[in-house]
Amino acid sequence: MTPAFENLLQELKHLPGLGFRSAERIAMHLLVEQPETLEALMESMVAARAAVRRCESCGNLAESAECAVCEDERRNPSSLCVVEHVPDLIAIERSSAWKGKYHVLHGKLSPIHGIGPEDLNFQSLIERIEAGGISEFVLALSNDIEGQATCHYIQEEIVGDRPIKVTRIGFGLPSGGGVTYADSVTLRSALEGRRDYL
Amino acid sequence: MTPAFENLLQELKHLPGLGFRSAERIAMHLLVEQPETLEALMESMVAARAAVRRCESCGNLAESAECAVCEDERRNPSSLCVVEHVPDLIAIERSSAWKGKYHVLHGKLSPIHGIGPEDLNFQSLIERIEAGGISEFVLALSNDIEGQATCHYIQEEIVGDRPIKVTRIGFGLPSGGGVTYADSVTLRSALEGRRDYL
Repeated sequence: MTPAFENLLQELKHLPGLGFRSAERIAMHLLVEQPETLEALMESMVAARAAVRRCESCGNLAESAECAVCEDERRNPSSLCVVEHVPDLIAIERSSAWKGKYHVLHGKLSPIHGIGPEDLNFQSLIERIEAGGISEFVLALSNDIEGQATCHYIQEEIVGDRPIKVTRIGFGLPSGGGVTYADSVTLRSALEGRRDYL
Repeated sequence: MTPAFENLLQELKHLPGLGFRSAERIAMHLLVEQPETLEALMESMVAARAAVRRCESCGNLAESAECAVCEDERRNPSSLCVVEHVPDLIAIERSSAWKGKYHVLHGKLSPIHGIGPEDLNFQSLIERIEAGGISEFVLALSNDIEGQATCHYIQEEIVGDRPIKVTRIGFGLPSGGGVTYADSVTLRSALEGRRDYL
C-alpha cells in the first residue's frame, strides 16, 4: 500500500458503516479496478456540495431557498410533521402516509451530549408559527428519553398556550413483528398505546 | 431528496459492498451531518488519483516506477509469489509469511468472462523471466477452476522448459475451521493435500 492509497483508505474508514475491509475494497475499486468510477463519484460530490443546502423554511435538503415539499402547494401547510433528521423525512415520504409539511430539527435534545435547544432548528419553527396558519404538530421523534425530552420541550416552550394541536406518532409492535421477540420498551409502548378494538 | 443528492446516492450505490441504505447514510453524512469530511475525502481522492499507479515491474500499487516491495533490497528477488489482485498481495504482506517478491496478474483466465492471457499482466512477467535471476514461482491463486486454468497456463506457456521451480500454495481447512462446516471443495483439497504426520 502506498501513502496516498493509505490516506484514501483512512478517509473512507471514517464514513458511517464502513470498516477496514469494505473501505479497502472500495479504495481498490476506485483506484485500480474501475478508475472511471472515481471520476463520476467526484463529479457528483462537487455538484452535490455546490447545489444541496438546507430549506430555509423546514430544514430539509433543498436546491433552492425552499425544498420540494415546502414548494408543493398540494401539501397541507397547516400540519407539520416534526422529525429529527432528513432520513426520517425521506422514510415517511416513502410511506406516502403524510400529506402535510415537515420540520426537521437536525437532532434531539440531549443534555448528556451537550445538545441544547440552541443547537436544534427551533428558530425557524418559531418563525413559522409566528407567520401564522399552523394548527397541528405531529411529533415523529424516536421512542427514547431524548425523543421524549424533545417532545416535552416543544409542547412546553414552543407551543405553550398557542392553539396548536400536538400529537405524537404511535409506538408499538412493528409490522410483521411478533410479541415474543419484541424488547421491553416496545412492549410497554404497545400496551400503553392500546386502542379500542372496534 | 434533491436531484444532486440523488445523483451522489446513485454513484455511491455503484461502489462494491454498498446498498441503498448504506449509500444513503454516507451521502447524508457527507452533505448534511459532517460536510467537512467531504472535503477531506475529496482531497485524498485527488491526491491518490494523481499519485497511485502500477509498479512497472510487478503490477502492485506504486507511487514511483517501482513499488515498495520491488525496491526493498532485503527481499529475495529470485522468488516470485504470483497473485491475482493487489488485495491478495496486501493480505500476504500482512501475514509476514513471504520474504520474496510478487507478481500481480490483475485477474485470472476466464474464457466464460472473455478474459484471455492478453488481458492479464503476463507481458511484464515474461520480461522479468528474460531479465534473468528468477528461480521460483509460488502460485497463490484461488482454489477454483479459473485459478487452476491460470496456474496451468503459467506452467505450460510461461515457464515451459525454463529451470524455474513452480509450486502452488496449500489448500485445506482454514485456521480455526472445523471439518463439519467445511464445504466439499475445501475437504477434497484438504484430503488431497494431506501430509505425513511426523
